[in-house]
Amino acid sequence: MSTRLASKEDYQKLLDSYDTWLFDCDGVLWRGDHLIEGVVEVLDLLRRNNKKVVFVTNNATKSRKSYKTKFDQLGVEAHVDEIYGSAYAAAVYLSTILKIPKDKKVYVIGQSGLEEELRGEGLQVIGGTDPADNTLEPFSLTDFELDTDVAAVICGLDMKINYTKLSKAFQYLTRVPNCHFVATNEDSTYPSSHGLLPGAGSISAPLRFALGKEPICTGKPSSTMLDCVKAKVHFDPKRTIMVGDRLNTDILFGQNGGLATLLVFTGITTEEEITGPNPSLIVPDFLTQTLGDFRIVERT
Amino acid sequence: MSTRLASKEDYQKLLDSYDTWLFDCDGVLWRGDHLIEGVVEVLDLLRRNNKKVVFVTNNATKSRKSYKTKFDQLGVEAHVDEIYGSAYAAAVYLSTILKIPKDKKVYVIGQSGLEEELRGEGLQVIGGTDPADNTLEPFSLTDFELDTDVAAVICGLDMKINYTKLSKAFQYLTRVPNCHFVATNEDSTYPSSHGLLPGAGSISAPLRFALGKEPICTGKPSSTMLDCVKAKVHFDPKRTIMVGDRLNTDILFGQNGGLATLLVFTGITTEEEITGPNPSLIVPDFLTQTLGDFRIVERT
Repeated sequence: MSTRLASKEDYQKLLDSYDTWLFDCDGVLWRGDHLIEGVVEVLDLLRRNNKKVVFVTNNATKSRKSYKTKFDQLGVEAHVDEIYGSAYAAAVYLSTILKIPKDKKVYVIGQSGLEEELRGEGLQVIGGTDPADNTLEPFSLTDFELDTDVAAVICGLDMKINYTKLSKAFQYLTRVPNCHFVATNEDSTYPSSHGLLPGAGSISAPLRFALGKEPICTGKPSSTMLDCVKAKVHFDPKRTIMVGDRLNTDILFGQNGGLATLLVFTGITTEEEITGPNPSLIVPDFLTQTLGDFRIVERT
Repeated sequence: MSTRLASKEDYQKLLDSYDTWLFDCDGVLWRGDHLIEGVVEVLDLLRRNNKKVVFVTNNATKSRKSYKTKFDQLGVEAHVDEIYGSAYAAAVYLSTILKIPKDKKVYVIGQSGLEEELRGEGLQVIGGTDPADNTLEPFSLTDFELDTDVAAVICGLDMKINYTKLSKAFQYLTRVPNCHFVATNEDSTYPSSHGLLPGAGSISAPLRFALGKEPICTGKPSSTMLDCVKAKVHFDPKRTIMVGDRLNTDILFGQNGGLATLLVFTGITTEEEITGPNPSLIVPDFLTQTLGDFRIVERT
């Protein structure tokens, strides 16, 4: 059963118990373009107490660099090397684990942030933001030339998803031998400022269905993402906590990595899913309404 | 086990045993824009022998009327009242079974043929080919007004699929109480003239994944399609045979309706799937390479 934090002592004890704090962003720090109340103060509190803070996001539309501008705009202190995104994790996975050679190409369903991270890892990118593939004109196989140098298809959230991109990706995955199928993350929905929209997992769903095959996912809850963090940040899993708003991504990610987990209710998961008649099988260690609740430790 | 037709007598016996012949089109009569050899002669042979012929297609991009022009172009005799499409079945399902009131609306992910059939059944259509929804411009919920008169979302093959359509459909299905989720068919792929492309089932996959819920499907193998045929054509199921190229749509459809089934290998299914080491659990009654094989009965 999860422990619901309530008293000043509860929050203080958590602060004392963990040195490294991993945060999901959307639904924890902000919701769309709205900062969640108290977040700046709590992150500041952690930093003043010499806690290591790491931001782990499944957002694959932005590179870490451009994701930092989101922090800046909302007035949240963050450094690029504290930010880990699923686009970056995907790029590292393709270059380091799959070892895609530099003369091969990656076909991208996704936005500029994903391309940026792939190029940052020295990978050749096609598709993505290429105007030729961002069209609603009819797609015909007669005009399509199969590029057999495509060694992988990577799929992330792409708000310009269309039949040409899906059809090309499908050709590579069915006609180029051993072409890898990788997705940044499987989030079914994406929390925009004004409500939920289809997420990256919904963008890769047509390919999964057409192929009858699942991609390798590099975002949360996959351990690929944690491997990326571990490669750069030294932390003791026993003294590390993952804070998130989604059970099947954030909390599962923490649990897969042997970390403590704290669920907040400022995002996707509702109290009902924890305390209702059919509670989730994914049980976080700790619960609190909002990250802002930690301000209690400084109240007199 | 399936019986493979081989001798003149085998084919003649099948002709004698069945009075009503249901045909899938793509992969049986033609492949994309290429007529399959011998098809015209065999359909002519059936008609001369007073067989009833019915064309049952999951193609949801064309109305029955415009689908007939495909027959005309390829020189295959067909009459509109012999043609049953999944778009028509969906329209009948929405108007007759779900009884969507005339003052309610149907949000369409699909092409003009689907809209035409829906309007033919007196349904009010939004989305679909509306230029406002056929765009790759960013979709924002702030510019979106939820039309609470939308009583159903219908999803068919839509080669102009995009994030605006998916996002709007998702809003209706999550925010309008009791909004029905209907799909014309679940074909994972679509056989174009030059190869496979993502099919209607792949177009509805993002919504299925985002919602965590399956739509009601009106195309093959659903019995809704056969109910539409039955309402117009009188036939004895014991003397009726379904001819198709797909096990999980055509053959299953025939079996669900208590019909005999004949599989041809001019479309999706390969011999390997029937006779290989891991044969399909869906076993057609009869097998032949191509519909054209029936010409043997007229050879001397």
